[in-house]
Amino acid sequence: MGSKKINNKCGLRQDYDFFSHGLEGVAAFETSISYIDGKDGILIYRGIPIEELAEKSTYEETAYFLIYGSLPTKTELKKFSSDLENHISLNTEDIKWLKDFPVAAHPMDVLNTCVSLMSLPEGGDYEIGRGSDLKAGIRIMGKMPSYIAAFDRIRKGKEPIPPDSKLSYAANFLWMLNGEKPKEKEARILDLCLILHAEHGVCASTFGTLVTSSTFSDVYSSIVTAIGTLKGYLHGGANEQVIRMLEGIGSPEKVEKYVSHAMKEKEKIMGFGHRVYKALDPRARILKKYARDLTGKRDEILFKTALKLEEVMEKKFGPKGIYPNVDFYSGFVYKALGIPTDLFTSIFAIARSAGWIAHILEYRESNRIFRPRGIYNGPVNVKYIPIKER
Amino acid sequence: MGSKKINNKCGLRQDYDFFSHGLEGVAAFETSISYIDGKDGILIYRGIPIEELAEKSTYEETAYFLIYGSLPTKTELKKFSSDLENHISLNTEDIKWLKDFPVAAHPMDVLNTCVSLMSLPEGGDYEIGRGSDLKAGIRIMGKMPSYIAAFDRIRKGKEPIPPDSKLSYAANFLWMLNGEKPKEKEARILDLCLILHAEHGVCASTFGTLVTSSTFSDVYSSIVTAIGTLKGYLHGGANEQVIRMLEGIGSPEKVEKYVSHAMKEKEKIMGFGHRVYKALDPRARILKKYARDLTGKRDEILFKTALKLEEVMEKKFGPKGIYPNVDFYSGFVYKALGIPTDLFTSIFAIARSAGWIAHILEYRESNRIFRPRGIYNGPVNVKYIPIKER
Repeated sequence: MGSKKINNKCGLRQDYDFFSHGLEGVAAFETSISYIDGKDGILIYRGIPIEELAEKSTYEETAYFLIYGSLPTKTELKKFSSDLENHISLNTEDIKWLKDFPVAAHPMDVLNTCVSLMSLPEGGDYEIGRGSDLKAGIRIMGKMPSYIAAFDRIRKGKEPIPPDSKLSYAANFLWMLNGEKPKEKEARILDLCLILHAEHGVCASTFGTLVTSSTFSDVYSSIVTAIGTLKGYLHGGANEQVIRMLEGIGSPEKVEKYVSHAMKEKEKIMGFGHRVYKALDPRARILKKYARDLTGKRDEILFKTALKLEEVMEKKFGPKGIYPNVDFYSGFVYKALGIPTDLFTSIFAIARSAGWIAHILEYRESNRIFRPRGIYNGPVNVKYIPIKER
Repeated sequence: MGSKKINNKCGLRQDYDFFSHGLEGVAAFETSISYIDGKDGILIYRGIPIEELAEKSTYEETAYFLIYGSLPTKTELKKFSSDLENHISLNTEDIKWLKDFPVAAHPMDVLNTCVSLMSLPEGGDYEIGRGSDLKAGIRIMGKMPSYIAAFDRIRKGKEPIPPDSKLSYAANFLWMLNGEKPKEKEARILDLCLILHAEHGVCASTFGTLVTSSTFSDVYSSIVTAIGTLKGYLHGGANEQVIRMLEGIGSPEKVEKYVSHAMKEKEKIMGFGHRVYKALDPRARILKKYARDLTGKRDEILFKTALKLEEVMEKKFGPKGIYPNVDFYSGFVYKALGIPTDLFTSIFAIARSAGWIAHILEYRESNRIFRPRGIYNGPVNVKYIPIKER
């Protein structure tokens, strides 16, 4: 795989070893955080299958496991949870910012701005290294759910609710959002969703966070990149779009026509397919069950529309074809928990913060700035004509 | 270059076609925006060598050229400059934010936060497409210098200065920063620096901005990523670090000892070497001349220290060795213009915004989400031990 020197149509020297538009098929680094087998639909976090963690672990424990590399002892978990807890409260300044934001702002932009604001008091004193990075990472993880819950209340004209130190990370989010202590089952289901979304290899947001941190930028900037990248509807933004699409379709009878139209117009059908999975995403398998159990009368038609869409897609593409991904059913779970649709992607961000931080810390150990190449296909020897003559 | 299936030490299937830690040697997309020949020290923007643009063009014209792909007519340039001008003024809200920021905040974090704040009024209404992307891009380009100038004044206890519509983009920055109309020569030199920094292929910040925009996230989020990525001292942050390093060395006699020590300790010597250039960076060649002309009595020792460092580095590494890069001399120019050291990287960001926007618009045309792979090297079959037994 030696260096190629290619005189392309421009006649200019261009050196590179491998070309892949969008980097499909290119491995960019080594990692011990998670492994995905897209062919058989397998996802493991540091050696443990996602199904086992979903059944037995908690989000705090899984986050610790991803970040530190081993399952915590009781003392370690207590310390980690209380470190998170220490940051979950918003201060007067935070609430002032949130109240000054336009109520129409998208929650993902709010989250992005808030994490960016968190970096300001650091000034130029942030020293790159495991200590600062972990400290900043845990601060960000602690504060993210609080920002989102408080913003949602403020935009509805309500006062933010302080966290309850007796509640778990997931339960606290529901409490701060709704002002009611969540039922155990509800808190557990959100916790499960957070576990399922905590990490997923080199997705675009995780890759983005590493591109930023690879220049030895700080963790705040790196997480801001991740949030901004997750926002796009080809990535985390899809969970919000799935529900909007299903609402747009309206009922199961209209699915067939919708799919034919979308395929003809080459429009994307949200929540299907994944560059990595050529089988059913194991997270979708788990979530579908919960979505079915939780979905009440109010959303029954919406859920039936989803099932019909899955069926039609399978018929069109065959059993080896395009499967629903994690975004397809997560929205139903959030909806059943009473969470507004435009917060769905923020919940993905809250969950994934664990994976982002784990990757930043890991990549720092063998850091190499991400600097691929572009192949120049533009003009050569263009004459600069003075503006008077143009 | 067929797909390899590698059973690595974990015994797990891992499919990828090419592995490069940090993506060196990997081409990630095609582009017609700029071309770099690192071996011969050549940089061209859309077919015109950087030396020619530096001599004959202006920043506004170069930015237009990069973004739209052709040199503007008089009417087009007037329209573009006035579009920029329309956004350069800060509104009451902007100034209120800046006054609320901690005075110790790093200007790059301020810039990041301000661009993120700009996205809030868009709400969920931002529609991905050339129209919205250009509109947002020009808004951001217009506002960036104003945010930085106003923040610098506010932290010094002064009032922000509104822009003067008769001044160029570069001259306006100096005017808003210092409250004095810059001399023609000063404005021209800053303009030149902006031209030289406007674009540079797939650097980490430009790549980061594309990773974000490739998920169909918006231009605000994408530029925020770019700013956060540029901040790191392995990238744009280097220009600030070069001056701090030279101040730390103190005088030409101490250079030799400094270099030996740094090499022994494997510490990075700032402002030297570039992954792409194996010859003198053409931008450094141009800037060195201006740095020499501009550097006054006050910074004479600092400049002599820089020259000595260049000499010592050449002696250590030979004429085919490590050359000063663009960051090595740009700081002297900014310093001579009376710009505070911690603003240097922000000026880089202001200049590079043109390249970032050009790349976002270009990549959208053949968008493919950036999703490389990681090679899993972690444990397999880890047993989940319940916490009681840990």
